[in-house]
Amino acid sequence: MLIAIDAMGGDHAPQSNVEGALAAAKEWKDIEIVLVGDQVQIEALLPERPSNLTIRHTSEVIGGEDEPVKAVRRKKDSSMVVAGRMVREGEADAMISAGNTGALMTTGLLVVGRMEGIERPALAPIIPTVDGRGVLALDLGANMDAKPEHLAQYALMGSVYRQQVHGIERPRVGLLNVGTEAIKGNELTKAAYPLLQELPIHFVGNVEAHGVLAGACDVLVCDGFAGNILLKSLEGTAGALFSILKEKFTSSLKNKLAAAVLMPELRGLKSMMDYKEHGGAPLLGLSGLVVKGHGSSDADAIKNAFRQARIALRSQLIQNISKEFSSGERVN
Amino acid sequence: MLIAIDAMGGDHAPQSNVEGALAAAKEWKDIEIVLVGDQVQIEALLPERPSNLTIRHTSEVIGGEDEPVKAVRRKKDSSMVVAGRMVREGEADAMISAGNTGALMTTGLLVVGRMEGIERPALAPIIPTVDGRGVLALDLGANMDAKPEHLAQYALMGSVYRQQVHGIERPRVGLLNVGTEAIKGNELTKAAYPLLQELPIHFVGNVEAHGVLAGACDVLVCDGFAGNILLKSLEGTAGALFSILKEKFTSSLKNKLAAAVLMPELRGLKSMMDYKEHGGAPLLGLSGLVVKGHGSSDADAIKNAFRQARIALRSQLIQNISKEFSSGERVN
Repeated sequence: MLIAIDAMGGDHAPQSNVEGALAAAKEWKDIEIVLVGDQVQIEALLPERPSNLTIRHTSEVIGGEDEPVKAVRRKKDSSMVVAGRMVREGEADAMISAGNTGALMTTGLLVVGRMEGIERPALAPIIPTVDGRGVLALDLGANMDAKPEHLAQYALMGSVYRQQVHGIERPRVGLLNVGTEAIKGNELTKAAYPLLQELPIHFVGNVEAHGVLAGACDVLVCDGFAGNILLKSLEGTAGALFSILKEKFTSSLKNKLAAAVLMPELRGLKSMMDYKEHGGAPLLGLSGLVVKGHGSSDADAIKNAFRQARIALRSQLIQNISKEFSSGERVN
Repeated sequence: MLIAIDAMGGDHAPQSNVEGALAAAKEWKDIEIVLVGDQVQIEALLPERPSNLTIRHTSEVIGGEDEPVKAVRRKKDSSMVVAGRMVREGEADAMISAGNTGALMTTGLLVVGRMEGIERPALAPIIPTVDGRGVLALDLGANMDAKPEHLAQYALMGSVYRQQVHGIERPRVGLLNVGTEAIKGNELTKAAYPLLQELPIHFVGNVEAHGVLAGACDVLVCDGFAGNILLKSLEGTAGALFSILKEKFTSSLKNKLAAAVLMPELRGLKSMMDYKEHGGAPLLGLSGLVVKGHGSSDADAIKNAFRQARIALRSQLIQNISKEFSSGERVN
């Protein structure tokens, strides 16, 4: 199993990527890692070189401000595009990048290529839930508008992913909606509902935003727009509450002393609510495995992304998703 | 100014409605209040009867489980429908109800009637923000799907409401979206953006969910589906965090003692995040004023709804919105 990492992508690149890759190479001897990026910079950050870790030099970098399609088309020797090409040509089994999200989507579509039978690949991060299990939500940002058939494809891909990569035997698949009754929703969700009922998945029906947080499902299906609103509202609310708590808890000496006792509890809660800590998000529906790390990924998050990619490869995730979509054209 | 209240609608009806109406009648002598509902039940709850408070007896009630359209069509002598008819016939200037939301929308559309030039009335509650000002969000649940022109109408109505009822001179109007750049969004928001730019409002562009909470705008424009996801995610996150905090803060004697010190701070925060405390939500775009109280409204919330209705009537809100829509057909 060979995994390529875009060493130059992300806020803490190349350092976090190199450190995370090194840690992964040392822990899992059954994977080979290729650091794709500027050889000089990468070598300077590598105190040792395990035999399963190599470097592929590239001369260009796609930055956070680059316009995705233009960047992917023009920067053919960028670390991201080269890693994508390695996947397409079968040289690598998977790629990981914490770089420009739009550019990574574009690399997925234009360089790696779609899986047969899939119209729209979907980005599927884990959103935190109160019960600590988290929910795989898709699509979260790859496509703003979706058709009912796309939601059905997301449902099937997400279900297979949760089974294969997270070992959930019968993942509960929910449809993000404004009410739990089958007749609720907008035109999109009302049309998608019966399609989801027909799939070979454990469809638990409509799920409201607060149900998502309470852990009502293992896979949440939504269009990219609604998913984005859900996630940013969650982040915004949690962030706002923590900052207000902090302000209030330091507003007097008495409060400060009391808050000091409770701080460890608060810190644990904050990291629980932080979806970035859940590691990489797969970009599902491509002909190869692409894992997106959060832009602010540190070395641990990158190592986590390798862990996920390794499990996905060992379980033949892509082949299994592909099988679902070629067997009887269920969701087209 | 005569305001009719559906005395039988809401979780705590008729008690909260009667108590709230009584308090309002005593505080504002320039309004006349008609309690619409079961005379015997209402009288039993009225310890006194100010001269500006009367009762209109009705024999039917629309319950929370009633199917909206059917209920409004059949229960012609229900407190909600009768209050709506009083508005349509000019007998009342406004109505307030904390009853079945769907039925109230239907009463608005079928009984009170739309304002000329408005295609879709919108429900516009206040969502709490960190700065305490709150944001008027519309549409929040009257219509799941919206066209760009509907969003433009919401923008104009919301802006006039904030000016007239809340005294904000130049309300900042934002479009709920997945990014702040003008080119971001789904098909709906991308098409709505230029329409909002052309309106005689202070359009501040796209606003992301966390920006909404931070107080980036005074009026938030969205379709009913996205608005519902935003609000329920906010409520769900806040609710989840408070319940986890409570659990953690009572997990040991040491924590309990520390938490006791901080409790007053937490309580204030909780009520700040609770949009139900912000009182009634207007249903804008009708030919008369309809204010929806939250289903769980207590007497204070009902009194608040009267306060809002009174200000709206004094400022001739409906006439002013109507003027915007008849002057030059700006948003059609």
